[in-house]
Amino acid sequence: MTDVAIMGATGYGGVELIRLLHAHPQVRLSYLSSDTYAGERVCDVYPHLAGVELPLQARDPAAAGRCDFVLLAVPAGGAMEIVPGLLDAGARVVDVSPDFRLQEAALYPRWYALGHTCPNLLREAAFGIPEWHREEIGSARLVAAPGCYPTGALLALCPLVAEGLIETHDIIVDGKTGISGAGRTSLQVDYHFPEAEADVAAYRVGGHRHLPEMVQELSRLTESEVRITFTPHLVPMSRGILLTIYAVPKAGAGADELRDCLRGRYQGEPFVHVLPEGKWPHTKWATGTNDCFLAVGIDETTGRAVAVSVLDNLGKGMAGQMVQCLNLMMGVEEATGLGLPAAYP
Amino acid sequence: MTDVAIMGATGYGGVELIRLLHAHPQVRLSYLSSDTYAGERVCDVYPHLAGVELPLQARDPAAAGRCDFVLLAVPAGGAMEIVPGLLDAGARVVDVSPDFRLQEAALYPRWYALGHTCPNLLREAAFGIPEWHREEIGSARLVAAPGCYPTGALLALCPLVAEGLIETHDIIVDGKTGISGAGRTSLQVDYHFPEAEADVAAYRVGGHRHLPEMVQELSRLTESEVRITFTPHLVPMSRGILLTIYAVPKAGAGADELRDCLRGRYQGEPFVHVLPEGKWPHTKWATGTNDCFLAVGIDETTGRAVAVSVLDNLGKGMAGQMVQCLNLMMGVEEATGLGLPAAYP
Amino acid sequence: MTDVAIMGATGYGGVELIRLLHAHPQVRLSYLSSDTYAGERVCDVYPHLAGVELPLQARDPAAAGRCDFVLLAVPAGGAMEIVPGLLDAGARVVDVSPDFRLQEAALYPRWYALGHTCPNLLREAAFGIPEWHREEIGSARLVAAPGCYPTGALLALCPLVAEGLIETHDIIVDGKTGISGAGRTSLQVDYHFPEAEADVAAYRVGGHRHLPEMVQELSRLTESEVRITFTPHLVPMSRGILLTIYAVPKAGAGADELRDCLRGRYQGEPFVHVLPEGKWPHTKWATGTNDCFLAVGIDETTGRAVAVSVLDNLGKGMAGQMVQCLNLMMGVEEATGLGLPAAYP
Amino acid sequence: MTDVAIMGATGYGGVELIRLLHAHPQVRLSYLSSDTYAGERVCDVYPHLAGVELPLQARDPAAAGRCDFVLLAVPAGGAMEIVPGLLDAGARVVDVSPDFRLQEAALYPRWYALGHTCPNLLREAAFGIPEWHREEIGSARLVAAPGCYPTGALLALCPLVAEGLIETHDIIVDGKTGISGAGRTSLQVDYHFPEAEADVAAYRVGGHRHLPEMVQELSRLTESEVRITFTPHLVPMSRGILLTIYAVPKAGAGADELRDCLRGRYQGEPFVHVLPEGKWPHTKWATGTNDCFLAVGIDETTGRAVAVSVLDNLGKGMAGQMVQCLNLMMGVEEATGLGLPAAYP
Repeated sequence: MTDVAIMGATGYGGVELIRLLHAHPQVRLSYLSSDTYAGERVCDVYPHLAGVELPLQARDPAAAGRCDFVLLAVPAGGAMEIVPGLLDAGARVVDVSPDFRLQEAALYPRWYALGHTCPNLLREAAFGIPEWHREEIGSARLVAAPGCYPTGALLALCPLVAEGLIETHDIIVDGKTGISGAGRTSLQVDYHFPEAEADVAAYRVGGHRHLPEMVQELSRLTESEVRITFTPHLVPMSRGILLTIYAVPKAGAGADELRDCLRGRYQGEPFVHVLPEGKWPHTKWATGTNDCFLAVGIDETTGRAVAVSVLDNLGKGMAGQMVQCLNLMMGVEEATGLGLPAAYP
Repeated sequence: MTDVAIMGATGYGGVELIRLLHAHPQVRLSYLSSDTYAGERVCDVYPHLAGVELPLQARDPAAAGRCDFVLLAVPAGGAMEIVPGLLDAGARVVDVSPDFRLQEAALYPRWYALGHTCPNLLREAAFGIPEWHREEIGSARLVAAPGCYPTGALLALCPLVAEGLIETHDIIVDGKTGISGAGRTSLQVDYHFPEAEADVAAYRVGGHRHLPEMVQELSRLTESEVRITFTPHLVPMSRGILLTIYAVPKAGAGADELRDCLRGRYQGEPFVHVLPEGKWPHTKWATGTNDCFLAVGIDETTGRAVAVSVLDNLGKGMAGQMVQCLNLMMGVEEATGLGLPAAYP
Repeated sequence: MTDVAIMGATGYGGVELIRLLHAHPQVRLSYLSSDTYAGERVCDVYPHLAGVELPLQARDPAAAGRCDFVLLAVPAGGAMEIVPGLLDAGARVVDVSPDFRLQEAALYPRWYALGHTCPNLLREAAFGIPEWHREEIGSARLVAAPGCYPTGALLALCPLVAEGLIETHDIIVDGKTGISGAGRTSLQVDYHFPEAEADVAAYRVGGHRHLPEMVQELSRLTESEVRITFTPHLVPMSRGILLTIYAVPKAGAGADELRDCLRGRYQGEPFVHVLPEGKWPHTKWATGTNDCFLAVGIDETTGRAVAVSVLDNLGKGMAGQMVQCLNLMMGVEEATGLGLPAAYP
Repeated sequence: MTDVAIMGATGYGGVELIRLLHAHPQVRLSYLSSDTYAGERVCDVYPHLAGVELPLQARDPAAAGRCDFVLLAVPAGGAMEIVPGLLDAGARVVDVSPDFRLQEAALYPRWYALGHTCPNLLREAAFGIPEWHREEIGSARLVAAPGCYPTGALLALCPLVAEGLIETHDIIVDGKTGISGAGRTSLQVDYHFPEAEADVAAYRVGGHRHLPEMVQELSRLTESEVRITFTPHLVPMSRGILLTIYAVPKAGAGADELRDCLRGRYQGEPFVHVLPEGKWPHTKWATGTNDCFLAVGIDETTGRAVAVSVLDNLGKGMAGQMVQCLNLMMGVEEATGLGLPAAYP
């Protein structure tokens, strides 16, 4: 059994990690920290985890660092404070904060109003999408798990950009997310049930923090400039993200070619599923899972490519992907402990 | 009092018309037809309309034609069969089917798999968006009320196209709709509560029938070719549409200029509201009303204009707009009988 | 025009009052107070009220007292502080806090942890259900509008108790409410969208504050002891209450007799609708309205009477009823300004 | 590996069985029948089951009977036609239709308008709640899995009745269910998203078919007459049932005694969780799982016991319980293959 710590264990990402790892056959959850609920047990805070009587402790990086692996689900700026110490203590880390996602330290002041305190680690961190960085992740000391939107966008876009099938300077990503992405501690009016129910709205138009991750990762795959317009929307559901992606195909690239590109790239991947022509994915297919569903076509009236990517923002978009990375780092089968398909409907 | 008939009175559009017109101070609902519920009373079929004891009758165009006005809410292909007779009988008609929206008869076989049986009326029909065709509607014998998506898209796009502020060959409309737009009689699995709840999905990608209306109406305002990629999505709410529109601004057009264009155009309009910089509309603001809320900005990273348009698909997107047209045709104050603002939340 | 003030104008009850009264033909909204948004305009805080450019002011009872009527939507304990002054200033008051609902001052410490500061006014206050206290309300200086649950329960139970058709010592009220009843400022995790969506739970089992109102009002109608078990539940919708009421019919009282009792009592009432045998009401029928729908039957296997009462907690359960009371106090037609039936679906 | 057949594999219960059993370490799904989708593969009908490429076949009891176990999820009346043949062929059966739940054949014409064709099997069938019939189930040829409501009601009531802590002639069960309980093929307007969203309503008041199961099972535990008033309600969620149960405690039975009774009875049970004083369960805790959460208290104002029971109608209320029974019949660990706790929120 491998000792694993979770810091930030009672946010939505943390509790999903507990759910998955408590049943993981090769993991022992040895240390769970919670700023809000230190001193209580998991099952008292979240009664649906009736069998998880583990204690929640105050934030203590030294204790976490004694574990083999630390999964970090703390807010932006919180990870960079403790990751160097964790690594020094010999732990390996999967961090889902943005603190190690961007390779250019200069982007942090601009997008997160934070100066980076350990920029030397930015180049070391592996970007935590296993389908694109499996080997780096497997041997990494530090994995930066991407945001939920970037995971969905990149799984759809990376193959098309890597094979040069779409123009990169004119990509539009229209995102629709469930509201659990807002987390549990930020009780704003926008997420108050009476206002969020039966409502749709755009937010942070043109300025969402997940944009630079998308640009960075696509830029690794092409020499062309990557420019993306990204508009996220809140829709009235708890979990799930659907991204509708518009791009200009390069000369000669038809719908079949785009679809074959995705299919070829994800052949054999256990969690990425490419749909046949004329089928478009539903967010409900991925709820509670580590699955991602992709579809692509070409709008005949304009010739523009339209791709749709679906995942669970707390699954493949967060905790599921972290466990997938952890499995790679532990050297066990990649799908271990990642549960069943979605409970539908 | 003016005698008004509704044909198709028990669909969602019909029952919304009854709600509005039963309380209209200058209208008498003299004839209501329902294929499904002929022989019953409105209040028996829809108990929330407890005070509306009017009878529902079998479809009888001759009876409808004896009224001053006929509001048609019948399926595609149904209106073209009866409109000529209604006009001959001297009635004036507001039709919310697609049968008279498209000016080119040749588009009907392609988009609706229907041959048009009275193409001579296509040029006569006024396109029923009062903010753009007020005078024609006021004097028309036949008004073709537009679809819910086109109403929202056109209210946002027409001013920008008319003033030459955006390129017309590269417009993307990403629509999110509540499920009442599917109507009441088409009980498909996609609209079955357990499957539609907590779910988002795209549908009819690249092929929705509302597209040619959008292209036609924008083409009236420009000599450039109009090309639109339109992707509609179902979101888990009953009423409401939000359209996110992406377009390339013409050289020199900044966010303020785009916003001022919308504001100037809709100054004094009772139902179209343009939001200040940084505010984006919520569908819930329009629920149950004839209101439309618009916002526009420019995404700095790509320079692309992003506009958002919100309305109630059964309100300004259907029955509300029909009543607004009817008021113009009757020569009464345009907002008569159109109810209160939204019951929020 | 009559000058009306609203204190607590930006809570859900307050904004519903503004919606209704801004369009009321005999009311001028002369003073609106908001602790949270003083200094802003209504349309800036609630953009869906685009036409309501009225200013929101700091709490100033003297300013409110210069109006003919004051509608109070402030929290428990807030009304008793200012009502005496308002009355002294000559204003008439409709208060939707609990401060004047209970006639026994001794109940306030027990149920609200408050000592009552003006107990002399408790006997003067009219209980604001027009269908049961129309004349008192019409001439009252002070009306105590009841809670949302008691309104629904009492409209169903009062006729049956008054006519002696049910036993009063063994009544069960099982309530299901939409979440807007929790108000807007109390942003608790229980009302956070991701947790409240797709969830049902009981709360305050056996101890909800609306219980003593129910007991008090029924006790006025009978000499028997009234005992009620009341269990409220949160269901995932914004507006609406459904109460399922179980009671033992007195010897000889059958389903028809119970139904006839309700029907006879509410004959001619514009807002209370009794359904025929075999029909049971839906909360959606009342959304956004001042309507209440009632049904009753007898469970054959046990002989127990089952009644169901439906209303909108912010409509007939709050702002709608307050406007109905205001109309009575102003001497205008009781339904003035109370809007259309529900926008369905 | 044990060969298992599912008949009725593409309804909501069937697809949940596939989800659970496809990953079951000791089960091989050898035969799946679907009247609607025969000839297709599971993953084509339900794309979220991307890895399940098993074929769906026409209904063929002989083929099913060649398996060791047959799980039946066919409509009322369908099971009694094929169960005798399956048993003759040597298969053991878990049937979730009502066909073998009631021990008195005479109840079928009354509650299901069906004459029973193999009444001799009624006494043989084990009633499929493992917590109450573990040994019978383990050795049974035929298990009648109970309805979703009865499972929840009986888990709460059986201990209290068995120990004589409540009166049995005056029990009220007020049920709230998600809409997946209506199944997938019955596309009625009541389950159409626009009407079911944001709505609550009672249905089949006094006449729901799950009532006689509750009465029968409780009657086994007491010599007193059992009388239950059962009122089910639809609430706007897909999965989940909450039952609020009202009963009169017998003299001397306090809240602690009732709670201790439940706790003692379910000590060590993996799927039934009794909450401490003052905590009441949420349906969301059980979504997608085989868990049941129970709480009980006493309403001080009336002395009545109030118990709340929560489960997932498709989990412990259907497919989960069937798998739990199957495990007992197979002689493997009872929780095998029953998945993780709920994905919350």
